[in-house]
Amino acid sequence: MIMAPAGAKRNILERLDAGEIVIGDGGFVFALEKRGYVKAGPWTPEAAAEHPEAVRQLHREFLRAGSNVMQTFTFYASDDKLENRGNAQRFTGTQINEAACDLAREVANEGDAMVAGGVSQTPSYLSCKCEDEVKGIFKRQLDVFVKKNVDFMIAEYFEHVEEAEWAVQVLKTSGKPVCASLCIGPDGDLNGVSPGDCAVRLVKAGANIVGINCHFDPMTCVKTVKMMKEGVEKAGLKAHYMVQPLAFHTPDCNCQGFIDLPEFPFGLEPRILTRWDMHKYAREAFNIGIRFIGGCCGFEPYHIRAVAEELATERGCLPAASEKHGNWGAGLEMHTKPWVRARARRDYWEKLKPASGRPRCPSMSTPDSWGVTKGHADLMQHKEATSQEELKPLFEKAKASH
Amino acid sequence: MIMAPAGAKRNILERLDAGEIVIGDGGFVFALEKRGYVKAGPWTPEAAAEHPEAVRQLHREFLRAGSNVMQTFTFYASDDKLENRGNAQRFTGTQINEAACDLAREVANEGDAMVAGGVSQTPSYLSCKCEDEVKGIFKRQLDVFVKKNVDFMIAEYFEHVEEAEWAVQVLKTSGKPVCASLCIGPDGDLNGVSPGDCAVRLVKAGANIVGINCHFDPMTCVKTVKMMKEGVEKAGLKAHYMVQPLAFHTPDCNCQGFIDLPEFPFGLEPRILTRWDMHKYAREAFNIGIRFIGGCCGFEPYHIRAVAEELATERGCLPAASEKHGNWGAGLEMHTKPWVRARARRDYWEKLKPASGRPRCPSMSTPDSWGVTKGHADLMQHKEATSQEELKPLFEKAKASH
Amino acid sequence: MIMAPAGAKRNILERLDAGEIVIGDGGFVFALEKRGYVKAGPWTPEAAAEHPEAVRQLHREFLRAGSNVMQTFTFYASDDKLENRGNAQRFTGTQINEAACDLAREVANEGDAMVAGGVSQTPSYLSCKCEDEVKGIFKRQLDVFVKKNVDFMIAEYFEHVEEAEWAVQVLKTSGKPVCASLCIGPDGDLNGVSPGDCAVRLVKAGANIVGINCHFDPMTCVKTVKMMKEGVEKAGLKAHYMVQPLAFHTPDCNCQGFIDLPEFPFGLEPRILTRWDMHKYAREAFNIGIRFIGGCCGFEPYHIRAVAEELATERGCLPAASEKHGNWGAGLEMHTKPWVRARARRDYWEKLKPASGRPRCPSMSTPDSWGVTKGHADLMQHKEATSQEELKPLFEKAKASH
Amino acid sequence: MIMAPAGAKRNILERLDAGEIVIGDGGFVFALEKRGYVKAGPWTPEAAAEHPEAVRQLHREFLRAGSNVMQTFTFYASDDKLENRGNAQRFTGTQINEAACDLAREVANEGDAMVAGGVSQTPSYLSCKCEDEVKGIFKRQLDVFVKKNVDFMIAEYFEHVEEAEWAVQVLKTSGKPVCASLCIGPDGDLNGVSPGDCAVRLVKAGANIVGINCHFDPMTCVKTVKMMKEGVEKAGLKAHYMVQPLAFHTPDCNCQGFIDLPEFPFGLEPRILTRWDMHKYAREAFNIGIRFIGGCCGFEPYHIRAVAEELATERGCLPAASEKHGNWGAGLEMHTKPWVRARARRDYWEKLKPASGRPRCPSMSTPDSWGVTKGHADLMQHKEATSQEELKPLFEKAKASH
Repeated sequence: MIMAPAGAKRNILERLDAGEIVIGDGGFVFALEKRGYVKAGPWTPEAAAEHPEAVRQLHREFLRAGSNVMQTFTFYASDDKLENRGNAQRFTGTQINEAACDLAREVANEGDAMVAGGVSQTPSYLSCKCEDEVKGIFKRQLDVFVKKNVDFMIAEYFEHVEEAEWAVQVLKTSGKPVCASLCIGPDGDLNGVSPGDCAVRLVKAGANIVGINCHFDPMTCVKTVKMMKEGVEKAGLKAHYMVQPLAFHTPDCNCQGFIDLPEFPFGLEPRILTRWDMHKYAREAFNIGIRFIGGCCGFEPYHIRAVAEELATERGCLPAASEKHGNWGAGLEMHTKPWVRARARRDYWEKLKPASGRPRCPSMSTPDSWGVTKGHADLMQHKEATSQEELKPLFEKAKASH
Repeated sequence: MIMAPAGAKRNILERLDAGEIVIGDGGFVFALEKRGYVKAGPWTPEAAAEHPEAVRQLHREFLRAGSNVMQTFTFYASDDKLENRGNAQRFTGTQINEAACDLAREVANEGDAMVAGGVSQTPSYLSCKCEDEVKGIFKRQLDVFVKKNVDFMIAEYFEHVEEAEWAVQVLKTSGKPVCASLCIGPDGDLNGVSPGDCAVRLVKAGANIVGINCHFDPMTCVKTVKMMKEGVEKAGLKAHYMVQPLAFHTPDCNCQGFIDLPEFPFGLEPRILTRWDMHKYAREAFNIGIRFIGGCCGFEPYHIRAVAEELATERGCLPAASEKHGNWGAGLEMHTKPWVRARARRDYWEKLKPASGRPRCPSMSTPDSWGVTKGHADLMQHKEATSQEELKPLFEKAKASH
Repeated sequence: MIMAPAGAKRNILERLDAGEIVIGDGGFVFALEKRGYVKAGPWTPEAAAEHPEAVRQLHREFLRAGSNVMQTFTFYASDDKLENRGNAQRFTGTQINEAACDLAREVANEGDAMVAGGVSQTPSYLSCKCEDEVKGIFKRQLDVFVKKNVDFMIAEYFEHVEEAEWAVQVLKTSGKPVCASLCIGPDGDLNGVSPGDCAVRLVKAGANIVGINCHFDPMTCVKTVKMMKEGVEKAGLKAHYMVQPLAFHTPDCNCQGFIDLPEFPFGLEPRILTRWDMHKYAREAFNIGIRFIGGCCGFEPYHIRAVAEELATERGCLPAASEKHGNWGAGLEMHTKPWVRARARRDYWEKLKPASGRPRCPSMSTPDSWGVTKGHADLMQHKEATSQEELKPLFEKAKASH
Repeated sequence: MIMAPAGAKRNILERLDAGEIVIGDGGFVFALEKRGYVKAGPWTPEAAAEHPEAVRQLHREFLRAGSNVMQTFTFYASDDKLENRGNAQRFTGTQINEAACDLAREVANEGDAMVAGGVSQTPSYLSCKCEDEVKGIFKRQLDVFVKKNVDFMIAEYFEHVEEAEWAVQVLKTSGKPVCASLCIGPDGDLNGVSPGDCAVRLVKAGANIVGINCHFDPMTCVKTVKMMKEGVEKAGLKAHYMVQPLAFHTPDCNCQGFIDLPEFPFGLEPRILTRWDMHKYAREAFNIGIRFIGGCCGFEPYHIRAVAEELATERGCLPAASEKHGNWGAGLEMHTKPWVRARARRDYWEKLKPASGRPRCPSMSTPDSWGVTKGHADLMQHKEATSQEELKPLFEKAKASH
């Protein structure tokens, strides 16, 4: 039973209002970094213009895995970020954003997927807090999305609810549905605003769908969305909910998430979730009422396929890539070794406690951070300190070294 | 300094005789399983014909990461294996093998890479041990490789040196250079033949390059190749050496490698090597005199890039994908958080002991296996027992369940 | 510099009012279980009468390690508990309580220590909640303590603040100083009364010193006492504070503490604190204002010595047992191996992350418990269910099996 | 069923020749260090004279736990060692050795135990290798043992088989049975002599019982004794076998054992064996034919009791201390919490994988050592370098600092 759901393409609100599950995609910057097309550090998406075949292939793999959303590969593609990072030499920001839209649309049209135009937090907010300037940044990206006629908008990866509100207000002008997703945990945003209060502010700013992405592992993100949902309901408001977490286990994170873990970003391998962890995540997210369920950094296509397989009954279909995947390990049924055949069953994989193979490594780390010891006040001070001015000598030095 | 080495394409023996390093690629079946194009269990490569764009893209990523060898995606593509597994419905074995050759050649021509035609162990050997029949199987694959004019041959993933000798004898008839690679550890092949003796037999059978692939982690494989080299040298013979290990830490394996670990194949994530582990592997392999250095299951393009970066001075070039990778974490130099910037240095990553993020999981497992307790005699008996006849009902059952 | 502090014996309130540190002893039931004199399960102290030399020796070791308090070995020595457990055959409850007082006094007189008479929670409270009956139980133990003229009283190991209040009210009638110590964590008592509220109630009931013992690791206990202190101060009351935690790491406990860990009580070894962990504990307890600092289950004499050594400057003396202990590992200075000599320094031991030597074991467990999933209501119901009546068949069965 | 075996005291060879099991005691220096009577570093036994009540109590606990051997507390009590370590001030070596004999005899007479006089390796051997001088050292201790009429002799804790041979030759002159026990692992002694060859040499030198003590965990020691037994049998000789291992898990040791682990000696807690680990050890030792089964550093009385309980059927008795121990956790049968009662069964404890409670610590360490990288030649050189001459300034410095 592998098939696409019947019916023409409907927009995300029609689907969610009808009680359907919408499956998101995975985090492109991490997946493409491993494939050789994104540089860790800047994390900018110039590959959309430079290496379109690589970006297109990744879109296809997520589509095949069950994604209903092709998110434009425009993370950190605001003009101020591209400029800061010195990566805009060969292509303008507009070129990158347009190329990303075209790739997402091309692949979305190959299946049952919508195109979502994405914006994310800006260096401008961190360095100046000037509302007009920050909104101008978002507006320039929005112009491309409108021109390319994406299906809906996602404002994601915001650590400060205020900046997310500004983004929502800008995106809202397009008349398209708007998602707002913060990269915060149960402790709230970096100013200490609680998840519940953040959600209320975002809904009031105009977001149709609110939730969490990145920075924390799936169960932590689901828990945080639950707090958002409780806040929205308590305020007598209505919204849909989304979650796009890390594919890394982060039990040892502080309030700033996996950035502060000593393993970020080049030693996270032992934390990668298995497909079976994804089944648990998908079920838990569904159970608390989230209907837009996807992934962020660390998600590979098989992780999304596991989400789609867990929810196959509810969705009425398996993803195309399940042609290459036995249910709960069923592909092992014909293995020549009997003890490997014995692994072709659900409870085996559900109960497995996978070993790290690293007896000289710990199971948890202590996050690096000033914030954890000094609190929000210091973080704010630090925020000022890392303005573009302060970072200029670093940019110069870094350029020189290449 | 990112460039390809000067000079036209020379064959592998010219390169190795000149003391050059040849970088291999990674294991396609695991990488494509995660992308949704290979089914775990059968592990057959019909995607070469079904989804060529996905296979082509993976070749390109390895080329970009520094691979000098595009291995045809023909693992387990012998007629008896394809038939057994019920995956040959849409395409014949010849079609799959030809499509794989075309893809490898297309991408090899985009850079400094050779095409290697690959054969691997057969169910026929396990079920009948009839030399003529097994050699006939290899011959049918070889016919395709000769027709498509690959640059050299690799017989790989053999647990019994005898079958590998037969493969070498067949491949040798092509007149092309032949590599022979076993999937064994320091304890020797499944009949207890030591690595040194295995290597001597393979060289005598005509192999130009001998070594190890799959089943064990990099350091174990390098150690086993060292034993092979000592055997060859003690016998007064000459050969080149290759290694293409797992990208998983396997300190807890028994003689049959990662197949017997409880985590195989769907719970291996915590064991994945970091790029920094790959630097150590590449250096160690180079130090003991191995010059054909690649990867097998678990290797992603960034793992091969790390091998290429570690050996950049010796090779005189960085791979193309290093345009998207700062040396030893240098891409973090411009991060906004000072404590993340502090990770932009070699000794930080060299010393890091990455946490698993899984405090309820162990660091080592106990392998499942009859072999480990009952020894080689039983394994042989088991080998007979898992003939095609015995497995038939399982095939029927499995087909029915889809 | 090894010496006892000058001055005659003063009572505990004089010491604490003067700002002095009072060091407690360790948990006798666990230490004597390992030595062969206490049975795990019943945990009753009949050894005070049966094997006085063993109990006397343990008192001496704690005295020598720096303890200022010889707590009578009367844990679970209430009549109802002794009867329940079938251990009172050879000696009456009064005989056991009297023997325990005599041993504590004998050793206290050998050094600078006070005798504390101890009562703990009763099965009567769990099965009937009748205030008069429960108070009668405490009164019978108190009669012995008064007769034997102990220096002060400790009501310890209470999971319900109500029962602890009753104990305090009874002990208070003696006119001696009274300590009240609960075995709860930051989540409060088993009825959900917060640590701060518990402390206020105990002070109002007449306790001079309030705090926490058993059930959780040192840092968790210190944190809970901090919450008690904040509660008392907020209520405008005054008290002294005590802490006597486990010597086991319990990061994975739920609200009922180490009883619910799968390792309790026969597999706790890997969790045992090192002496260096004790230094950190002693410093932290001192820093938040606790002045009666001791130990409970798992504490061996060298753990108390470590507490005394950490606070040597503040106390003005080292304990007698430090004649057999180099400061921060200084005893290794003359080792024949240079790399062992290199361990004779403080920062080596402070930074050491000790390995478990158990690569097939996890670092955290999941507590067994109904309470954790069903909450306090169920616990209360369960409390009723485990009355003496219900347990009778179990007692019979257990007796028959010996 | 708790009783002593019938019959008068027979000597160790009578017992072993009759096929009986002889249970040893535990390591006194580690147990008494934790109790405050031995200084880590020097590890000398002057407490036999200084604090006889503490030593007597520990003997009693081991007797009660099932020990048939009261080993005199004379470890490192040779004149050269006592002098070196600056611990002989208050008592002469003869006084210490005599006091130790008296204590062992006093307690042995309280039950079914023999007294064994013990000698161990000397600094003299390490610094001069002069046979006559080293033998003179052993002779002075032997004179005390003969005068005090111990029942048999143990030469233990030797890293060089040569020195052990000299000890055996001296002890043999007494006419009493002689045990010879090395502190080596499967790799052999520090000159590389294999366990099998060591055993043959010791038997030829006159030892009646040969085996292994200290330095490695139980399973490693049992394995090494098995190699000794195979060597003795292959040489056509006869002997009895003994084993007295650490009570610490040491999967990560190199050839020099736990001394080189970074945790030695003050951070070994997480490695302590549970009582259930001891059951497995006792069974394994018995199965390979070892009949003198005891313990060394880390063993507490309850560990020896577990050995005695595992072998209760074979010995025909339980130890006295089993009156305070339910079989396989049976003492939990009356616990008030049902989930704790559920732990009162054998398979629960056999299968338990106890957590470390230390998620930030690894499960294995890397041994500190020059030997591991430079091999035996360097070790020998190092051996010369650590002569008394070289160490003199260190002694002076250390004395001054107290």
